[in-house]
Amino acid sequence: MELEKIDGGVTAPKGFLAGGMACGIKKDLPDLGLLSSTKEARAAGVFTTNLVKAAPVLVSSQQIIRGKARAIIANSGNANACTGEEGLKDAWTMVESTAKALEVPPEEVLVCSTGVIGEPLPIEAIQKGIESLAANISPQGGETFARAIMTTDSFPKSTALEVTTSQGTFRMGGAAKGAGMIHPSMATMLAFITTDLEIEAPALREALKKAVDLSFNRISVDGDTSTNDTVLILANGSSGVKGQGEALQALKEGLKKICQELAHMIVRDGEGATKVVKILVKGAPSDREAEMAARRMANSLLVKTALHGEDPNWGRLAAALGSSGCRVEPERLQIWIGEVQIVKGGMGLPQAEDPAHQVMRKREYTITLDLGLGPGEYWMWTCDLTYEYVRINAEYRS
Amino acid sequence: MELEKIDGGVTAPKGFLAGGMACGIKKDLPDLGLLSSTKEARAAGVFTTNLVKAAPVLVSSQQIIRGKARAIIANSGNANACTGEEGLKDAWTMVESTAKALEVPPEEVLVCSTGVIGEPLPIEAIQKGIESLAANISPQGGETFARAIMTTDSFPKSTALEVTTSQGTFRMGGAAKGAGMIHPSMATMLAFITTDLEIEAPALREALKKAVDLSFNRISVDGDTSTNDTVLILANGSSGVKGQGEALQALKEGLKKICQELAHMIVRDGEGATKVVKILVKGAPSDREAEMAARRMANSLLVKTALHGEDPNWGRLAAALGSSGCRVEPERLQIWIGEVQIVKGGMGLPQAEDPAHQVMRKREYTITLDLGLGPGEYWMWTCDLTYEYVRINAEYRS
Repeated sequence: MELEKIDGGVTAPKGFLAGGMACGIKKDLPDLGLLSSTKEARAAGVFTTNLVKAAPVLVSSQQIIRGKARAIIANSGNANACTGEEGLKDAWTMVESTAKALEVPPEEVLVCSTGVIGEPLPIEAIQKGIESLAANISPQGGETFARAIMTTDSFPKSTALEVTTSQGTFRMGGAAKGAGMIHPSMATMLAFITTDLEIEAPALREALKKAVDLSFNRISVDGDTSTNDTVLILANGSSGVKGQGEALQALKEGLKKICQELAHMIVRDGEGATKVVKILVKGAPSDREAEMAARRMANSLLVKTALHGEDPNWGRLAAALGSSGCRVEPERLQIWIGEVQIVKGGMGLPQAEDPAHQVMRKREYTITLDLGLGPGEYWMWTCDLTYEYVRINAEYRS
Repeated sequence: MELEKIDGGVTAPKGFLAGGMACGIKKDLPDLGLLSSTKEARAAGVFTTNLVKAAPVLVSSQQIIRGKARAIIANSGNANACTGEEGLKDAWTMVESTAKALEVPPEEVLVCSTGVIGEPLPIEAIQKGIESLAANISPQGGETFARAIMTTDSFPKSTALEVTTSQGTFRMGGAAKGAGMIHPSMATMLAFITTDLEIEAPALREALKKAVDLSFNRISVDGDTSTNDTVLILANGSSGVKGQGEALQALKEGLKKICQELAHMIVRDGEGATKVVKILVKGAPSDREAEMAARRMANSLLVKTALHGEDPNWGRLAAALGSSGCRVEPERLQIWIGEVQIVKGGMGLPQAEDPAHQVMRKREYTITLDLGLGPGEYWMWTCDLTYEYVRINAEYRS
């Protein structure tokens, strides 16, 4: 199999149309995106675990149980969360307006929102927007769609692959919007993936869940989960390639690649972030404990500010590790920054400070912690924390 | 009983001497504090739950099992954490030097350190410092002691009470150093409490634990627990008042008051913080779940930045609540900012925005959440998050 990067985002695969417009939720900025498949697609989704779920999350997670969909309508600028019965009604109105405009069954329309929590949607403006947008979606609309779902994102997040297998060639596309460092309550993580592979919903669901676990679930921008986080995939079979054997394998591979690329873009776009750092924990008593440790470090303000200061202040890693819930025996702890070992047997190697600092000047690198206790392993991507707040912190040891 | 605020800090009670000096750990700033009781005192302590414990924490938690102590030696500028065998040896050396200088048994000396993690202590300088400091402690040294334990603190934290009961009058004093917003890895929370009440170690321990639960355990500056956090109390009985009946009750009351006052000072001194906000969760299924919810909100960057922006952006509270692990039924949720109800039945009350904003302009107020699910209750003190990082966040909705 071969995976080649191509342009076009979510409309790179055959039989997908998309577009975006400014319908009036934001002031003069794109705020409404529509993605549609020319034929019924298999569909799967992964939704936020937050107990306070936005209305569109309630609607889409109910709709997707059928395993099929024809369209996704998404707005930015307003999360339609904590909006009660009215909000739920508005989410259904978005579904129905889209179904009507595209002449597809309402059961096959999914809806997503992202933006401010607790404010009613300007539903009339959105309804009008849907009507005009439905008439303007196209097979070239992938990038416009990616722009319409942006909130605090500083760049649109879009990617696509052409996948060549012995069973034939199919395509995959993806678009996402990310959680800024600053505004995650309006910067829900949304991602939309398309493929023209032919595949049944259960296999699609399983592949998506796995890819999400290896990508979006491993990024830390500020540690909060939103009321609206959603990842959706549509597979419309237009390539004629069946998702079995090598092609199924290729789909999984491609899905992981697309999800990781979009997730990476989200971390890179963390508000003010200048670095993407992988935190790899190994030697933990279990994968679960390794995850607790990696998450704690990736979310620690102190770790994130040290990353920005390019300061190999491993004491902050040790402190976060010790409070993570993961078992730790300090005297077994080893830490590497890039290839430079800075902690051995729980103690710092002073001569490693300068070479470690050199690694930390890069835009991307890995911090590895070996706990020396077992086979447990996990990794996370995190970004640095910047601004005046951080300037002071970064200067701490210099 | 009557509790009256007095001056003098940890040396306000009879029979305590203290002092501080610059011994050379920091550049020209006080970095070594000594607190001593003229007679053997009963002692109790509460230590960090972080699995990576600093050497002085290991030493003092072992020493305090005996339930008695004569002196506490504390340094700032270096945490003596992640320093291996050498660090442990240095902590014992501090104990022994202090014992020798004061001519007391080494088993009755406690040690605390706070500052940078992972660097060896300049132990010779500290030993010399201890010698000269032991000759210069005095019953007026409480404030000097409080200054010597500061790291990023912007003011020394010291308080004292005179407690009048039908059994007689005794005194209590306290000093603390706090966790700045920015530098908590060197800004461990340390607190030292003294009293001239006569009381046995088990009762002292129980009273301390309870007071700590109601104070230092309820503050959030940045959510990390340090390798060095320690609270110690010494009771030397010099007042002649026995800690039973009303006097025991008064000790508990006074201890809560002193711990809460010191904890409040720590929050107020959060780096750049301008506000202290109490987050009160009630109506949770259990106290434990209420605590999870209160902690999550008190530690949320998004909540803290909204506090700074004086923005009644309750969506951030709802999002933090929903991801806290506490059961939530959004349609039962009610939220008050001060006396102003801004959420009813899980939905915002738009007319409350402006009065809620007025409350948020104050330096101190309470946010109350009623989950409507049970009798569980918990509160936390948190502070706002400021700086450029926050400026942007605060401006989000305006």
